[in-house]
Amino acid sequence: MTHSHPNSLLFRQLSEGVSNTYTYILVCTASKEAVIIDPVLETVERDSKLINELGVKLLYALNTHVHADHVTGTGELKKRFPLMKTVLASKANAKSDLQVKHGETIDFGRKSLEVRATPGHTNGCVTYVLHEDRMAFTGDALLIRGCGRTDFQEGSAQTLYRSVHQQIFSLPGDYSLYPAHDYKGLTCTSVEEERNFNPRLTKTEEEFIDLMNDLNLPYPKRIDYAVPANMVCGIYDLMDEKTRKTVEQSLDKHT
Amino acid sequence: MTHSHPNSLLFRQLSEGVSNTYTYILVCTASKEAVIIDPVLETVERDSKLINELGVKLLYALNTHVHADHVTGTGELKKRFPLMKTVLASKANAKSDLQVKHGETIDFGRKSLEVRATPGHTNGCVTYVLHEDRMAFTGDALLIRGCGRTDFQEGSAQTLYRSVHQQIFSLPGDYSLYPAHDYKGLTCTSVEEERNFNPRLTKTEEEFIDLMNDLNLPYPKRIDYAVPANMVCGIYDLMDEKTRKTVEQSLDKHT
Ligand SMILES: [Fe+2]
Ligand SMILES: [Fe+2]
Repeated sequence: MTHSHPNSLLFRQLSEGVSNTYTYILVCTASKEAVIIDPVLETVERDSKLINELGVKLLYALNTHVHADHVTGTGELKKRFPLMKTVLASKANAKSDLQVKHGETIDFGRKSLEVRATPGHTNGCVTYVLHEDRMAFTGDALLIRGCGRTDFQEGSAQTLYRSVHQQIFSLPGDYSLYPAHDYKGLTCTSVEEERNFNPRLTKTEEEFIDLMNDLNLPYPKRIDYAVPANMVCGIYDLMDEKTRKTVEQSLDKHT
Repeated sequence: MTHSHPNSLLFRQLSEGVSNTYTYILVCTASKEAVIIDPVLETVERDSKLINELGVKLLYALNTHVHADHVTGTGELKKRFPLMKTVLASKANAKSDLQVKHGETIDFGRKSLEVRATPGHTNGCVTYVLHEDRMAFTGDALLIRGCGRTDFQEGSAQTLYRSVHQQIFSLPGDYSLYPAHDYKGLTCTSVEEERNFNPRLTKTEEEFIDLMNDLNLPYPKRIDYAVPANMVCGIYDLMDEKTRKTVEQSLDKHT
């Protein structure tokens, strides 16, 4: 790759259309070391191909949390990139190669992601911040003009409100924010935009809690097999028999 | 908006899920002057809301070409932002406030888009290049690992091949390329990636022409009303009766 700047970042946002999930590939172009954030099982082929074409060394597959709406691609990626390590927050209480804590960093080449604990959607939700490039990956803690639900997986509206205000809205206003999902075709936002226009998080803490508790959302379709599969980073050998079968069946439906 | 750099760009990529079209909003943060590229009729509400929230002055709505797969949002945007001007290539032979030619520039604040003629998908296809930020908007001339079809709207495989090689692949390798569509959830690519991995454009001119002529693609569903509507930049008052009715009916189906 030819690049204008020795410290430059190659950045790719990828979307999966069924669960409306965003996956991110970040490459330090100086060292060609790379990470992937929130890969999806159904798009592993596409993402692996891109990683190989870019000629980069995939060091880590990070999940922002144990997803309930899709099975992570980290297990399948590990088969294709055996040196890659899976990463989850230690608070997720799940199996992964690396468990990270608030304040720690994940390094790839000259780049460094700061781990910020942003619980509330789940206990183990984290936001990854790349200060040098003024961007953060917020998972389901903060969505564009929205936020993750707080009615399952140990969710807590109060905890989420405080996470967003203390850990995300406290970043500089021009930082770009990249969420785990969007359902309207938006791809990115900024700290300042969400501070001003997020219809939920601009409310008071009390109003936010009432609002979140009144949402009455339907039970998530995939939660019963996605969560157990994601608790082991989507690694087939570690899944129990029943989860493995359900994941296989759901993949069949896609092809 | 608070921004780290006086010459910085605020950039938003937006997608429309039915036609898989990408719309782009570019803002010069110093002056707050903005342009929108390839807006879609069905998402005008979403895009207008974002433009208003960003508090920017929308100068131009640019179309990369007269689209056959969706009706442009420029007509509806003009109602909401009356000072905004519609832009098309003069080679498009269509009605618009501004007709641009190869080599001209479109300025917003301190930013400047260079117009490059990249015919072949249609005669009036252009690529807009933002040199300062090392990015280009290629419309349907070059897609990620693909390209626009050349079997209607005066398409020519030979012309397209030469456009891409002479006007896009000649840009520096690290320039980011943003297409009008993607059907796999990819959002962006680079000149170098496409020079190396585009399965069509890496072929010889002869092979490319054969390949394009053998595609046998189905007749585009919306072409019969999208093209006439886009020939007048989606401005209702300028459409003939029949086109107006079909556009209205297609909108009803969406809501
Ligand atoms: Fe989630
Ligand atoms: Fe087109």
